Amino acid sequence: MVIPMRLAEPSHVQSKIPTDLEHLRKLFIMPDSPDRFMQFGYELLDLIHSFFKEKGGIHSEISLPQLACLFNAIDIPKEPKLLKDILAEVKQKVIKHSVKVGNPYYIGHMTSAIPYFMILLEMIIAALNQNQVKIETAKASTFVEREFISWIHRLIFCKSASFYKRNIQNHRIALGNVTLDGTLANLTAMLVARNKAFPADERFPGIRKAGVAETFRYYAIHKAVFIVSQRGHYSIDKVARITGIGDNNVIKIPVDSNNKIDINALKKVLKEISEYNSSHHDTIKVISLIGIAGTTETGNIDDLMALRKIADEYNIFFHVDAAWGGSVLLVNKYRDLFRGIEKADSVTFDAHKLLYSPLSMGLILFKNPYDLLNIMHTSDYIIRPDSVDQGRFTVEGSRPFSCLKPWVTLKIFGTTGFEVLFDHAFMLTSTLKDVISKHENFELLNSPELFITNYRFVPENIQNKINRIYEQLSNADQQKATRLQKRLKKLNDGINEMNIELHRAIRQEDNSFVSRTMLESTRYRGQKIVVLRAITINPLTTPAILQEIIDEHNKLSLTIYHDFKNRLFHI
Amino acid sequence: MVIPMRLAEPSHVQSKIPTDLEHLRKLFIMPDSPDRFMQFGYELLDLIHSFFKEKGGIHSEISLPQLACLFNAIDIPKEPKLLKDILAEVKQKVIKHSVKVGNPYYIGHMTSAIPYFMILLEMIIAALNQNQVKIETAKASTFVEREFISWIHRLIFCKSASFYKRNIQNHRIALGNVTLDGTLANLTAMLVARNKAFPADERFPGIRKAGVAETFRYYAIHKAVFIVSQRGHYSIDKVARITGIGDNNVIKIPVDSNNKIDINALKKVLKEISEYNSSHHDTIKVISLIGIAGTTETGNIDDLMALRKIADEYNIFFHVDAAWGGSVLLVNKYRDLFRGIEKADSVTFDAHKLLYSPLSMGLILFKNPYDLLNIMHTSDYIIRPDSVDQGRFTVEGSRPFSCLKPWVTLKIFGTTGFEVLFDHAFMLTSTLKDVISKHENFELLNSPELFITNYRFVPENIQNKINRIYEQLSNADQQKATRLQKRLKKLNDGINEMNIELHRAIRQEDNSFVSRTMLESTRYRGQKIVVLRAITINPLTTPAILQEIIDEHNKLSLTIYHDFKNRLFHI
Repeated sequence: MVIPMRLAEPSHVQSKIPTDLEHLRKLFIMPDSPDRFMQFGYELLDLIHSFFKEKGGIHSEISLPQLACLFNAIDIPKEPKLLKDILAEVKQKVIKHSVKVGNPYYIGHMTSAIPYFMILLEMIIAALNQNQVKIETAKASTFVEREFISWIHRLIFCKSASFYKRNIQNHRIALGNVTLDGTLANLTAMLVARNKAFPADERFPGIRKAGVAETFRYYAIHKAVFIVSQRGHYSIDKVARITGIGDNNVIKIPVDSNNKIDINALKKVLKEISEYNSSHHDTIKVISLIGIAGTTETGNIDDLMALRKIADEYNIFFHVDAAWGGSVLLVNKYRDLFRGIEKADSVTFDAHKLLYSPLSMGLILFKNPYDLLNIMHTSDYIIRPDSVDQGRFTVEGSRPFSCLKPWVTLKIFGTTGFEVLFDHAFMLTSTLKDVISKHENFELLNSPELFITNYRFVPENIQNKINRIYEQLSNADQQKATRLQKRLKKLNDGINEMNIELHRAIRQEDNSFVSRTMLESTRYRGQKIVVLRAITINPLTTPAILQEIIDEHNKLSLTIYHDFKNRLFHI
Repeated sequence: MVIPMRLAEPSHVQSKIPTDLEHLRKLFIMPDSPDRFMQFGYELLDLIHSFFKEKGGIHSEISLPQLACLFNAIDIPKEPKLLKDILAEVKQKVIKHSVKVGNPYYIGHMTSAIPYFMILLEMIIAALNQNQVKIETAKASTFVEREFISWIHRLIFCKSASFYKRNIQNHRIALGNVTLDGTLANLTAMLVARNKAFPADERFPGIRKAGVAETFRYYAIHKAVFIVSQRGHYSIDKVARITGIGDNNVIKIPVDSNNKIDINALKKVLKEISEYNSSHHDTIKVISLIGIAGTTETGNIDDLMALRKIADEYNIFFHVDAAWGGSVLLVNKYRDLFRGIEKADSVTFDAHKLLYSPLSMGLILFKNPYDLLNIMHTSDYIIRPDSVDQGRFTVEGSRPFSCLKPWVTLKIFGTTGFEVLFDHAFMLTSTLKDVISKHENFELLNSPELFITNYRFVPENIQNKINRIYEQLSNADQQKATRLQKRLKKLNDGINEMNIELHRAIRQEDNSFVSRTMLESTRYRGQKIVVLRAITINPLTTPAILQEIIDEHNKLSLTIYHDFKNRLFHI
């Protein structure tokens, strides 16, 4: 069944392509015999296949400025072209220069290999082209969506079987929404929290109608805040800006050495707010306390039980951003990591992360099935009030039938399959942690809980130097301590620079990919430390690959260190 | 090349499916020989093909409660299943009960048939799985996106060639964003407008940081408003709620008989605001004036030139929601319909409407390439300030490589191809208008500009009755006029009910699909009229099909009329 790769040979000599309606119509229906379509499909698959198999790096060698030159045609195409010619162009210009995010050596971001059947499901989704906004354009798919939402709701909130039997297809309520991504899931949750914080009464139409300013006047509010740890995803700031709360009003609580929200610091802040409120006419309203499971940079999970307790004490809406970690709940034995998540008011969950769906699909789930009514909207020509349309509850308008992908995945893998996948990911994470801890030239900088490892290159002798400084610090007077801290800071500045260089070199070498970030929560508290960040969730990644990656890091580092040596030795 | 339809025969007798890592890994890579994959692909295509070819209606016969019973499994699947069994389930339960939105008799919503090569492109998009948020997960695709945005920017704003040469791949600015849909495009535009209306200065950090309430205090603002016509898309209200402005502060200007914003009414409102402001300390700020091209319910286009002039006079940000009509700009001879759009500050544009892409993709374009910097955000671990990441400017976080679809479509069709498609759509619209106008039992209720026709069933003798009332009204005294208006209202109440019944009957019959809405802007001003709404953009729809649809409407109507006759005759 081998068909020659004609995609690779564009038709240079070609007669004018007909543009009459009959010709165009043929592009709009499945060819009468699917052979032609399948031929393209076959060639494409072969092409995709070879893209993945190709040796030699995560990226193509082209530089960004060179790439810019490939895509700088300022005129909209006028004359029609043949499909096969354009597919050849897509191959040459797009596929060739895409990032191999599914490569087992690509451990830098939350993308992994995806199951190949996703490609089949995208075919179905595109062919059906249902619009989830309303039942008139999405019939079975509306019900699939509700079933899927109900599964994830149960996974998180563990309500009774009878609750789900009653509500799985109950269109009068909503257990949650499918969203474009985690950002929109967080936005949806914070809108619900905001609207619940400032409801309508006999004299006031509620914040949705009145807006933030009038609401604050009516309720005598000085300002409203979101509270999250310093590890909160950047979308929380974004949401504060979008919703008119303002990102100055996101209170960032410090984290402990495990990158978990510092509960005492949180209590202190809430106490201060409480005290402020009791002595002022215009008060501060906490719209939501946000817990994280797990943090995007370090993979840690806040103490959700403690957060729930505090939220109860102050009567605050408690949201958990589990975009990263949520899927791990599928495996019972890991459930304990998330203790308390079942008591959250809302939870963000992503399908394109640990449900291994392609980009992109998020979910927002609400414990209270009436909460989403706080953002319900209707319209005359669609989503009428008496309708069963999913669009009544979503921030988004038109939406594709994305949920087919994780719905099918759960059926094909089952929770049993996910156990195997997550066991593997935990094993990889602990392997990487070991490799780094035992390596003389690398320093582990977090206690990974969910598949994310932070580390940096620090050559052995510099590590010794640092250790000596810490020893001296333990019994130094104030003056000496200041001097030592200054030296430490200078050393870390140099190490930061080295690790930025290392990251550049890793990308240059292009045999593997890790990301980098800055953390203030390492043992060098008070100083931002540049860290490399590895995410080990790809089922195709192996312990041997991780060893290989660190070995290469080491090789590259030692060359870089050569340049920094003199400087660092004289600190 | 015929392969038996094995998908239809799930394997009832099956041994336990292995769940070890080796087995699962095989699902994560393209099978070593693509044969197996292609076999599934082939079967799926065949299945999709037969779904489209199947005679007998837009929908399957199943009722919504019956459908609910198909998707009410409350337990997350535990044991793994074979792909082929799940695909068979998808066929039986999902594909079978999906809405045939691409059927040429489905003229009820803004979905059409889509080119079949979209299915191939979705395969590529899923296989590459690029995340547009950052260059580290989206290399060539970032550049494709910027090229595509530049094309649509030029289509709308027609700046000089040198402007586009300079900016097409200039990562320091942004000509626009790819968004999930039109709602998020409108949201993005209104955020930019809001942030520009309340900027930072030496003493104030700007609305993004400060939030709405503090901003209003600082700028001495009583309230801020959006202004749009009564035909504005419901997403404008949604955006007002989301952004903290409040939907009470969306000023809806009446429309004229062509469903275009009433310019005089608009001027009056702005004059009133101006007068209010000159006599009050706390003023009213107009964040944005929004024009429509075209309206979702009636397909009409506001006088954009006039709106621009007024916006200039009052120094207001001028946004145009061209989610529906924007693509028509691809055909030069229709450009005149949109006169003034090139002077807008921002324009919303949808690819899943008249660019014939599958669900879903919107665009927001800004004339000023620095405007999007008003919502720019950065983060340490991705989208660093010095980065070239598209995610710096988007409301959304993770996003798929959706723009590949319209980018390829423009190359395959060219503007020449789009001319053929839109010529056909204009022809269909004018045919339907004629058929309805000439039909004794139907009343045309709008002057369609962009492929949307509003009409209703009114039997000939009732039409005569209405006409006689209008004749009498022309020389009636106040008292008589009131009586006549009352009769007219009663008649219209009855006709409204009949048309709701008709819509129900059309859906029941299921040979075709139109939507329905309510309009206050017909010649029966002051009364909301139930109208049927047909959208004629599918290249597979023909004049004969439209005639057939109206003939069926007529047949169904006459039966319904029988029940209403007595009531309506006695008014």
